Amino acid sequence: MPESLEELVESNDLLGVRAWLDDQAAHVIADALARMDHVAAGVPFRLLDKDKALEVFEELEPVDQQAILGGLRDQAFRDLVESMDPDDRARMLTEAPAKVAQRVLAGLSVRERQMTAHLLGYPSGSVGQTMTPETVPLPLQVSAGTALQRVRDRGHHAETVYVLPIVDAGRRLVGTVELRDLVLSPADTPLADIVVRDVPFAHATDPAEDAAKLMRETNVLALPVVDSEDRLVGLLTIDDAIEIIEAADTEDVARQSGSAPWAGHYMAVSVWQLARARAPWLLLLIVASVLTVNVLQVFETTLENVTALALFIPLLVGTGGNAGAQSATSAVRALAVGELRGSDLAAVIWRESRVGLLLGAMLSVVGLVVGSMLVGGDIALVVGLSLIVICAWAATVGATMPLLAKRLRIDPAVVSAPMVTTLVDATGLIIYFLIAHAVLSL
Amino acid sequence: MPESLEELVESNDLLGVRAWLDDQAAHVIADALARMDHVAAGVPFRLLDKDKALEVFEELEPVDQQAILGGLRDQAFRDLVESMDPDDRARMLTEAPAKVAQRVLAGLSVRERQMTAHLLGYPSGSVGQTMTPETVPLPLQVSAGTALQRVRDRGHHAETVYVLPIVDAGRRLVGTVELRDLVLSPADTPLADIVVRDVPFAHATDPAEDAAKLMRETNVLALPVVDSEDRLVGLLTIDDAIEIIEAADTEDVARQSGSAPWAGHYMAVSVWQLARARAPWLLLLIVASVLTVNVLQVFETTLENVTALALFIPLLVGTGGNAGAQSATSAVRALAVGELRGSDLAAVIWRESRVGLLLGAMLSVVGLVVGSMLVGGDIALVVGLSLIVICAWAATVGATMPLLAKRLRIDPAVVSAPMVTTLVDATGLIIYFLIAHAVLSL
Repeated sequence: MPESLEELVESNDLLGVRAWLDDQAAHVIADALARMDHVAAGVPFRLLDKDKALEVFEELEPVDQQAILGGLRDQAFRDLVESMDPDDRARMLTEAPAKVAQRVLAGLSVRERQMTAHLLGYPSGSVGQTMTPETVPLPLQVSAGTALQRVRDRGHHAETVYVLPIVDAGRRLVGTVELRDLVLSPADTPLADIVVRDVPFAHATDPAEDAAKLMRETNVLALPVVDSEDRLVGLLTIDDAIEIIEAADTEDVARQSGSAPWAGHYMAVSVWQLARARAPWLLLLIVASVLTVNVLQVFETTLENVTALALFIPLLVGTGGNAGAQSATSAVRALAVGELRGSDLAAVIWRESRVGLLLGAMLSVVGLVVGSMLVGGDIALVVGLSLIVICAWAATVGATMPLLAKRLRIDPAVVSAPMVTTLVDATGLIIYFLIAHAVLSL
Repeated sequence: MPESLEELVESNDLLGVRAWLDDQAAHVIADALARMDHVAAGVPFRLLDKDKALEVFEELEPVDQQAILGGLRDQAFRDLVESMDPDDRARMLTEAPAKVAQRVLAGLSVRERQMTAHLLGYPSGSVGQTMTPETVPLPLQVSAGTALQRVRDRGHHAETVYVLPIVDAGRRLVGTVELRDLVLSPADTPLADIVVRDVPFAHATDPAEDAAKLMRETNVLALPVVDSEDRLVGLLTIDDAIEIIEAADTEDVARQSGSAPWAGHYMAVSVWQLARARAPWLLLLIVASVLTVNVLQVFETTLENVTALALFIPLLVGTGGNAGAQSATSAVRALAVGELRGSDLAAVIWRESRVGLLLGAMLSVVGLVVGSMLVGGDIALVVGLSLIVICAWAATVGATMPLLAKRLRIDPAVVSAPMVTTLVDATGLIIYFLIAHAVLSL
């Protein structure tokens, strides 16, 4: 004898709930949901698979639809989901049907939308969290005049009416029409004549940053967002896209300096939070720089005999680090704005090694002059030669690492300047002492 | 007996041309210009002051207007201006009247517009170079229906019709109306009811970057651009603003890594250009890091006696540099997005010194462990203590320098991470050796 749906939800038996839902017809489920508390009803509703959820939703009376959608927005429902096992939670957070998602999100503020989108299966940082669900979708069959009238009737609540998504009978995205074309075309023009097909679009679960960058590249004022079955769920507007790109750039800047990004105003985060954002990288880097101690230990006898060599260690590792940081930053930015791809590795090595050689040759003049003045000719020669080799090496390594990261599908921004610097330090010391041995015949 | 205008232009006597123009009435000047070669006519035309230029322009027959405006776009005219003395050139490049500027720029491609805008007195990098002159300005007195009809009649060539500038009889900017409001309002609504007054706008000579950032902050799709008398000359569209911000960010990123920004695609610029962008900073930094050599010379006897101290030099200067770079980057970005002001200096010093102490305390554990394993207790203690002091110092200096730059009205982005690193290197060495002397009782 099966328990009622209400009892199964109350006893938190999610497996039982799923089994019950699988067995029953849509109208039976709708009936059971309508009779439950509207927050509790959210659980079985979100456990339904996508097609059945839509079927059940359409079987509900409008007043019950509102109650259940309202329940999904309720803090109590959010807490309920948060308290579940990760596995159950993941099952609860599969993508909702486009129509349901739109109804849930309609009329919410940006903040409310972001909290609720999570419960509709759009992961944190996805387009689904940022898009506006209020759009004016148009069918392809009408004329420009009819379409314009429809915009007049329904456009008041939409966040934008400049890009109008065109959908088929199944709400699937066909293309877009710009309001401009609707206004400038004669009223009897069929939409089919002015629709732009093959428009850029995003899936609701895509990272918002990718969608925003796609908008920047394609110069559209709003990007249609669809679910996994290509059904329209919303639009990402250009002003939201600009904010997303700005936040992503701030994160990249933090990563580039070897620090985790943090959320919030610089003066508002606590000293602890700042320290926590920076500590992991500093730790990693100091452990990596133990290599420099090892290298110097190998050459300790050389240092004891020619202490003057020690004087130039900070200058050499510093310069190598600077040259490496310059080329790493160039490469990361060129990758970010699409000027470089992972496959350009060989070409970049060839470019940067020559740039490094040029720079090294120039700096070696400084090294020779300063070295001769402070310690004399032989060591000045060692310093000058080392600068040439270290600069060429640092510039090459600096540009290579972000490209390698890209090839290995790691975010190139993670290859921060400090990371390049630290790795170039140890190898730079080896170059310095090998040249010293050769020139000074040690 | 005064020479003719044509003769004065031919003999390149610009003072004479100005004197002649001052003496004559607008219709006389118009007559003289109409009879000259259309490229040569550009010279006296651009030497007219703004009000008189508009008067003369309106006296000209349409066919002569076209000929003279065409002459301003001519390569021969550009070459002529380029070949002038800087003083004369500057006089030639004062801002043109809004109406003339719009007519000159209309119908040109973005590239042509940028070349020509310079000749209309809009400096390099100004909004005037990027704006679109093709707008649909509307008078305030009409109804929404009439306005919409006007957009239909004239909007086909405009780059955007989503933001419609409203101007008074003297072409002065009154406000804007969004196409959305025009479409959604009943046809008999007076524009005065839906106009937005006090809209953000830019002067044509303002830096494009400032205008683009203003658009980002105010979330407008197009920004009206006016001349020095508040007369409408064009619109800056959001897609151009996004490109401007992206280019500015790329420049900031380059500066932060201690490199001059360069124009163009990373793979398209030559090896020489890349080296030239990076060389000045590297040179400055290597000269600054000669300080580290001087510091080490002071402590050379200590190094001779305790060579093991040399082993930790790269680790210490590297870690100090990393900590300094982190806080410098945080401060520069916080300044760029407006989270910090120059007056926050004391608060920032207080924050960052504590963050640095926390980080240093954590890293000193690594220093103590590694030091004890590799060289023994005494030197390990020196390294551990030095890490605490150096980290606190580096974090403080790193955040202080961009704020000081801001106070001195220098671009904080110029205080690059490598610059902080290099300056922290020398002071870090002093800290290290002072602690060594105290602990090892040298």
